[in-house]
Amino acid sequence: MTDTVISSATREIVIGFDRPFVIIGERINPTGRKLLAAEMAAGDFSRVEADALAQVAAGAHMLDVNAGIPLADEPAILARAIQLVQSITDVPLSIDSSIVAALEAGLAVYKGKALVNSVTGEEDRLETVLPLVKKYGAAVVAISNDETGISEDPDVRFEVAKKIVHRAMDHGIPASDVVVDPLVMPIGAINHAGVQVMRLVKRLREELKVNTTCGASNISFGLPARDGINSGFLTMAIASGMTSAITNPLHGDIVRACMAADVMMGHDPDCARWIRRFREVPPPGTGAPGEQRGRREGGARRRAGGAPGAA
Amino acid sequence: MTDTVISSATREIVIGFDRPFVIIGERINPTGRKLLAAEMAAGDFSRVEADALAQVAAGAHMLDVNAGIPLADEPAILARAIQLVQSITDVPLSIDSSIVAALEAGLAVYKGKALVNSVTGEEDRLETVLPLVKKYGAAVVAISNDETGISEDPDVRFEVAKKIVHRAMDHGIPASDVVVDPLVMPIGAINHAGVQVMRLVKRLREELKVNTTCGASNISFGLPARDGINSGFLTMAIASGMTSAITNPLHGDIVRACMAADVMMGHDPDCARWIRRFREVPPPGTGAPGEQRGRREGGARRRAGGAPGAA
Repeated sequence: MTDTVISSATREIVIGFDRPFVIIGERINPTGRKLLAAEMAAGDFSRVEADALAQVAAGAHMLDVNAGIPLADEPAILARAIQLVQSITDVPLSIDSSIVAALEAGLAVYKGKALVNSVTGEEDRLETVLPLVKKYGAAVVAISNDETGISEDPDVRFEVAKKIVHRAMDHGIPASDVVVDPLVMPIGAINHAGVQVMRLVKRLREELKVNTTCGASNISFGLPARDGINSGFLTMAIASGMTSAITNPLHGDIVRACMAADVMMGHDPDCARWIRRFREVPPPGTGAPGEQRGRREGGARRRAGGAPGAA
Repeated sequence: MTDTVISSATREIVIGFDRPFVIIGERINPTGRKLLAAEMAAGDFSRVEADALAQVAAGAHMLDVNAGIPLADEPAILARAIQLVQSITDVPLSIDSSIVAALEAGLAVYKGKALVNSVTGEEDRLETVLPLVKKYGAAVVAISNDETGISEDPDVRFEVAKKIVHRAMDHGIPASDVVVDPLVMPIGAINHAGVQVMRLVKRLREELKVNTTCGASNISFGLPARDGINSGFLTMAIASGMTSAITNPLHGDIVRACMAADVMMGHDPDCARWIRRFREVPPPGTGAPGEQRGRREGGARRRAGGAPGAA
């Protein structure tokens, strides 16, 4: 029953085994977004603000903030972006950079307990990032690759994750503050990537007892109708025990899939969150309660096969 | 590695452990469809024909045919409907009735190896339906309830399924020709119904080594945005090892979810079926290949979190 608590100044989010899935909005990231990169580098954070608000409105529980712009002063920009996002929303943040100085600049201004994104199993990363995580009392995303790259063998990835968790503990960081990213491969290239990641998530949960996250969109790289694949992946990952993901909440299918998965896992008591979000509002003037579109089966019926839509 | 072969005169469908999920179209069923019921009772099968063709076009691999109309001559109507559907499509059928005489009338005219839908664990059903299944060399759906009703305890439902499978074997029907319906409860009323059915499907597969099916729509009874719940349920059920379902292929989300689940399970080699169905066709005149909508991440990137959409 591992819980990872992340917080802003006024709000806590818990990533945990028996809790609703945590959606970490991925949009505040200039990688591949030329306009956003140029604006951030020029000190214009209006799009960052808009992205923050839109993602929270769409259902993000946390936001990832990345300022990886080539040749720019990443530490300063990341710190500025974090301050700005924290001034307009209360969701906790994931501070995302591959530059240690940027992580530190972000942590220095962050209000609350951040999620540091990320540390790998590489020796120099372990020994520079983990002390920072400890110093600021943060949690950290552990990516299961090391000096040898990303192994295609999930057992090797498990061992890398285990090494990071143990090293974190050596630095005084509890295992519950390490959220492992098992690394998601594109299923168009590696057809067993789905089954592989499900097994790995299960092992991470049962044997290492850690929470998990991932960059979900990678699974569908190169395929058409990506939201369909991403939704299916997230649903199955949640069934396997994954507890959070960095993904795009502006794609409605993704949020709906995660919320349906919460219902299916029994993590949405009385389906209250589902009903609140999707309840049909009757058209004005009809006075009628929202009806189920053309379906009439009763809960006690022997089978739904005997209850197709009307007409 | 259990395979259940169902056939029409010219086509075989295999419900199996390591095969694509089999969608059995539920629409040809007058329950709750007054117009269809009246037409079928009056000998007008035009809507049955249209439903058959539409479901196959939408992605159904098999069709369920039910003629349960109060006070009508169900055996004659069911036989007629089956002959008609078999004359216009080549997909194998599930012959669906709670009246043994109707099942027999359907089996008598059916060309191929049908799926009889269904037998329960009730003594009189076992001893009337199973001999018919044996006589016609059919396969059968086993619904895991008995004289005591539907147990809320999945262990009891497992035992009922086991009893039916063993009784079928006593009648000379191999276990591979019994497809168990674990019974899906409405999750709005029973919040652990999802977790329960996933565990039960897994046990049925691992311990009893049988294929499984279900009336999928029951899970979302009483909830808004039912397709979202149904899609999540089917995805998780497939992850747990479910191999077929009686559902509505005319709801595009359902077919997409099942196809994405096949991709995730590694049951769609090279994602060929997914790509064939969802590949984007460039608008006429542009001459451009179909582009991924605003996404640019590469398969070898460390994480998709660093690769949100463009702009």
